[in-house]
Amino acid sequence: MKIGFIGLGIMGKPMGQNILKAGYKLVVCSRNAASVAELTAAGATSAATPKEVAAQVDVVITMLPNSPEVKAVVLGANGVIEGARPGCIVADMSSIAPLASREIAASLAAKGIEMLDAPVSGGQPKAISGTLSVMVGGKQEIFDRCVPVFKSMAASVVRVGDIGAGNIAKLANQVVVALNIAAVSEALVLAAKAGADPDLVYQAIRGGLAGSTVMDAKAPLMLDRKFNPGFRINLHIKDLANALDTSHEVGAPLPLTASVMEILQTLKHDDHGNSDHGAIVRYFEKLAKIELKRAAP
Amino acid sequence: MKIGFIGLGIMGKPMGQNILKAGYKLVVCSRNAASVAELTAAGATSAATPKEVAAQVDVVITMLPNSPEVKAVVLGANGVIEGARPGCIVADMSSIAPLASREIAASLAAKGIEMLDAPVSGGQPKAISGTLSVMVGGKQEIFDRCVPVFKSMAASVVRVGDIGAGNIAKLANQVVVALNIAAVSEALVLAAKAGADPDLVYQAIRGGLAGSTVMDAKAPLMLDRKFNPGFRINLHIKDLANALDTSHEVGAPLPLTASVMEILQTLKHDDHGNSDHGAIVRYFEKLAKIELKRAAP
Repeated sequence: MKIGFIGLGIMGKPMGQNILKAGYKLVVCSRNAASVAELTAAGATSAATPKEVAAQVDVVITMLPNSPEVKAVVLGANGVIEGARPGCIVADMSSIAPLASREIAASLAAKGIEMLDAPVSGGQPKAISGTLSVMVGGKQEIFDRCVPVFKSMAASVVRVGDIGAGNIAKLANQVVVALNIAAVSEALVLAAKAGADPDLVYQAIRGGLAGSTVMDAKAPLMLDRKFNPGFRINLHIKDLANALDTSHEVGAPLPLTASVMEILQTLKHDDHGNSDHGAIVRYFEKLAKIELKRAAP
Repeated sequence: MKIGFIGLGIMGKPMGQNILKAGYKLVVCSRNAASVAELTAAGATSAATPKEVAAQVDVVITMLPNSPEVKAVVLGANGVIEGARPGCIVADMSSIAPLASREIAASLAAKGIEMLDAPVSGGQPKAISGTLSVMVGGKQEIFDRCVPVFKSMAASVVRVGDIGAGNIAKLANQVVVALNIAAVSEALVLAAKAGADPDLVYQAIRGGLAGSTVMDAKAPLMLDRKFNPGFRINLHIKDLANALDTSHEVGAPLPLTASVMEILQTLKHDDHGNSDHGAIVRYFEKLAKIELKRAAP
């Protein structure tokens, strides 16, 4: 099985490297010449356009910023659709709008090209270590054929449903994460402003119904004032924009997610767009005119 | 050490029973005559007023609905303050406003009476099994003297800080729980309305950063349409009212908690006040004109 990989950014480059390490033949294409050089030095070949990639491979993986970029690369001039043979599989691992995944898949299906939407979670560290989580939408038989390729990059590969379902799961994930961070933020800032030690409050509630992976991941970083990413606020804005667009298109209002979006936008305009999303706490700290801190030891 | 217990409701009655089982002498007082009879049959004695309880014991435990009831029982006519000797300890295990705890403690301190605020989490099942979690505010030495009594009712007893800190931790807990339930609700209703199987989405995201105790406790109940309490929406409204009052008094705005409060109030007026707080999902289902369900097996 020969693989194409389009988009060698922060995530795509290490993902491509892990595919190579697993022994697959790889054809890459990216606007990032340095990354292309790195991959070809490691054994990949390169192609000038997505069309040329698709003409040579069985599976084309795309790892791009958002829906418009995926549409352009797959359906645009010199795009994947112009080079791919019938039976070829496009596995889009970008995090994009699920309705865009379905549109792209429909265009590809008209030419006999299969598609999976397969967004990931885990960020750059897990892209490097090959331990991403992949959430996949698409036909079972196409999924089954691609599992070994996904496994070369991931610790967990789950089929969630038909095309679009991978990105729906990703958006559900991002909605919950954003709201859970905001929940921890409101609670700890209230506790501190009311005169309690936020660390002791965190310790007191983490083992009960209020406990969450977000609480254990982010509360210590908030208390230590560590807001280096991690996962950037600007990226969470992109994901929530897709969640809200989807909610508007299908008719499933998300009033709390919309409020968190306003908080993220405020932080972006306060120059925190490249901070970790744990910096959501800064919004509530500013409202309360207080900063979380650990008690003196 | 002789214990007084005032308030033998759904929580107080089993808590009093567990104190008796641990071998303490117990004096009870409650408007619930049947509960008083049950406790005296099990070895307690009864007193007619909080004043008479306090005159006979070393520690007076109160377990009452909210701040006004605690103020009336402790500071009102024939209240604890009229009977308690200097050195007596009032351990209020009700969930009330932390600023009310501090006011009551200040009034008691003027007469040489000590106080702890010691709200619990875990609900009736853990009150019966004696495995509550107790979050305590107050002086370390007073806390230390009461730990054995708390342990007769609880699996976890943690001092969070000075007086009021117990209720601050409880409110922080309730803020996080309400928002985390709303987060799971928005995410799964969006997923279902967008065409994915909400159970598969739940399974796909529960192991990652979106995972939470709330998600694992409530998502299956939402999918199974089980909304019997558990923890009633009416009680969560009481706790969020105390959280919002506190936030207004200390100046720590809680915009998302305020939004969840509106959702809870809407559900109360839709006759879901006695449903489990997992019924928060019904609000979003109504907006999206859909109900979560499991896929046919």
